[in-house]
Amino acid sequence: MTDIHDLTRKLQRQNDSKIVLFVADGLGGLPREPGGKTELETANTPYLDALAARGVLGLSTPVIPGIAPGSGPGHLGLFGYDPLKYNIGRGVLEALGIDFELGGDDVAIRGNFCTVDDAGNITDRRAGRIASEIGARLCEKLDKIEIPGVEVFVRPVKEYRLVIVFRGTGLSGEIDDTDPQRTGVPPLDPLPRDDASAATAEIAKTFIRKAADVLREDAPANLLTLRGIAKRPAIPTYEEVYGLRSAAIAVYPMYRGLARLVGMDVLDAGATVDDQLDRLEAVWNDYDFFFVHYKYTDSTGEDGNFDAKVSRTEEVDAAMPRISALKPDVLVVTGDHSTPSKLKAHSWHPVPVLLAAETCRFDPCERFGETECLQGGLGQFAAKFLMPLALAHAGRLEKYGA
Amino acid sequence: MTDIHDLTRKLQRQNDSKIVLFVADGLGGLPREPGGKTELETANTPYLDALAARGVLGLSTPVIPGIAPGSGPGHLGLFGYDPLKYNIGRGVLEALGIDFELGGDDVAIRGNFCTVDDAGNITDRRAGRIASEIGARLCEKLDKIEIPGVEVFVRPVKEYRLVIVFRGTGLSGEIDDTDPQRTGVPPLDPLPRDDASAATAEIAKTFIRKAADVLREDAPANLLTLRGIAKRPAIPTYEEVYGLRSAAIAVYPMYRGLARLVGMDVLDAGATVDDQLDRLEAVWNDYDFFFVHYKYTDSTGEDGNFDAKVSRTEEVDAAMPRISALKPDVLVVTGDHSTPSKLKAHSWHPVPVLLAAETCRFDPCERFGETECLQGGLGQFAAKFLMPLALAHAGRLEKYGA
Repeated sequence: MTDIHDLTRKLQRQNDSKIVLFVADGLGGLPREPGGKTELETANTPYLDALAARGVLGLSTPVIPGIAPGSGPGHLGLFGYDPLKYNIGRGVLEALGIDFELGGDDVAIRGNFCTVDDAGNITDRRAGRIASEIGARLCEKLDKIEIPGVEVFVRPVKEYRLVIVFRGTGLSGEIDDTDPQRTGVPPLDPLPRDDASAATAEIAKTFIRKAADVLREDAPANLLTLRGIAKRPAIPTYEEVYGLRSAAIAVYPMYRGLARLVGMDVLDAGATVDDQLDRLEAVWNDYDFFFVHYKYTDSTGEDGNFDAKVSRTEEVDAAMPRISALKPDVLVVTGDHSTPSKLKAHSWHPVPVLLAAETCRFDPCERFGETECLQGGLGQFAAKFLMPLALAHAGRLEKYGA
Repeated sequence: MTDIHDLTRKLQRQNDSKIVLFVADGLGGLPREPGGKTELETANTPYLDALAARGVLGLSTPVIPGIAPGSGPGHLGLFGYDPLKYNIGRGVLEALGIDFELGGDDVAIRGNFCTVDDAGNITDRRAGRIASEIGARLCEKLDKIEIPGVEVFVRPVKEYRLVIVFRGTGLSGEIDDTDPQRTGVPPLDPLPRDDASAATAEIAKTFIRKAADVLREDAPANLLTLRGIAKRPAIPTYEEVYGLRSAAIAVYPMYRGLARLVGMDVLDAGATVDDQLDRLEAVWNDYDFFFVHYKYTDSTGEDGNFDAKVSRTEEVDAAMPRISALKPDVLVVTGDHSTPSKLKAHSWHPVPVLLAAETCRFDPCERFGETECLQGGLGQFAAKFLMPLALAHAGRLEKYGA
């Protein structure tokens, strides 16, 4: 089908409306047993319920039914970008996750420290899960590696994980992983997938050779493997496809990076929701669209802590009065995917969506929860359609055709 | 995805069934406040409710969520043509709107009379909104313009608006507008978008030059601008894609034109619903498919007159007994889009659909209205799927695959 943005590019209309997209990460959940309530349904959410009563509910599918998305595709969908069209490589996501400002021509790589024996065979693919401090110190040494014609950045992530970025011209991300996915064999060579990638593969090879030299005495972290070698995808910006001046108020680097990918201004704020709302209030007149990201509904779900997820959901609820007081024309509260504490993981279950605006065809729903969402006026829909809906309710789209 | 018509072309089956598609233009609405009823829900509609009880309800999305369609894409969707695939240019729609019979090679243009000063700069893009009588008189003069190798038709629309049609061979619609969208500058040249359009652009230029001469003494309408230059899209006919002999009983020219585009026989009828039903009864044996168009649910919505839209909806209801008496195998009542009187405009909200046939999987709905449609057996679906559903219920589609 036609790209949504082919429509929104042409139909976008400017006005003074404000749209807030509040993402409670991993919002959707599961009841513990048949007949039970989900985390969201268990939570006491008077403010969200009031919004539900004067808005519409629905359920969004992040990618396609059955597919549990990572944070990248989850957010791209919410931002209105088809997550099957725009693919964010693992290396890019890792780089975004440490707040590294990736350029359009940079190649980002997720590295793993590993242990090799005298014969060069891998004995531990995670280098004994070395402490983060050790990883950081080794990255400092690796960061000094020089390769003619290319700038090399090496940054620690956590424990045995690191990010490598090559910066130069004509680089390619079409290079295979070097992690053989098993022990007892040497790392693979970084093989180019096409002729145009041969030079970059050579750079990767040189990097690995020099890294082996640098890490010679650093067992168990005496080598590294490269994974998810990728450039950032060419994504059109919010300004371009929606005509929106947009701001992201997110604490965690990965979400800041995802927002940056679509051209949002990424604003700094303190770590609490109140800090985020302070920032939101402070910049209210400077933007049309605000992405506010809240992490803890996801992390408590990943921990399998039902009660903690309920509490965190109530924290989301408590944030609503300050947002409503700003009188956004459109307020959307949803998640990028479900993270049921029962599964301790991202899941494929449809995600609760609440959209409040004056132009809603109010549905009978009066509480924000999965069961009521199933009866909601938005129905079940692909997450990528949320942005055109928000724009429509904000009066920011012209009629299509005469 | 695969074109619906690739399927219906292969699977179409002939029988004696009759399908009626009754389009109450702009049918969908909005309640005035949370908890309130829409226009359709407020209306007293015993006959539609009886149909709802023995049929299925649902909600259709004309284009994609969030997109408010014009009448062109709205009807194309209902007719089963993907409105993102088949694009009807503004000029074509204007020509259809005055009942001009456009040929497949004709180029249709929406013209605006404008005022230019001695320096050739536009001082009024709408020529002081001259009276329709003046516009008509000027069009008569312009209609006499002769350009070698091409036939020129000039027809008045209303006030400062007119339609120009070039008829010839090898003409192209890929030419830019000449309206600069502001005053104080001269009209733009009609620029071809590709080499193949250069000759047609020259014709347009010649036309403008001669028109300037004709209109020399007719200030404030002493020039014109050209917009929406387009040929009609190549649309396969109902006969071809569905195997249906189809008739349109529509009063307003634009809907007659849209029906003509897809190959329907466009029948004349008086202006009232009863006149339309007289016609329907008279030709009942001559066709398989009947498109009946009712305008006033849209126009009252556009006027922002909730109560009038309610009354007009009751007029639609009153038409049902005569249609039911004909015993159509499939009766569909729906709109081409929503026109909530609250918004005074076409909107993106899903459109109520009622389908009554012996083969329905009856749902629990007993009243035709947006809230019940949300619970209906058809669910929420893209409008373009309505025709395959109607064909299926009419027994007019073979099984797909063995």
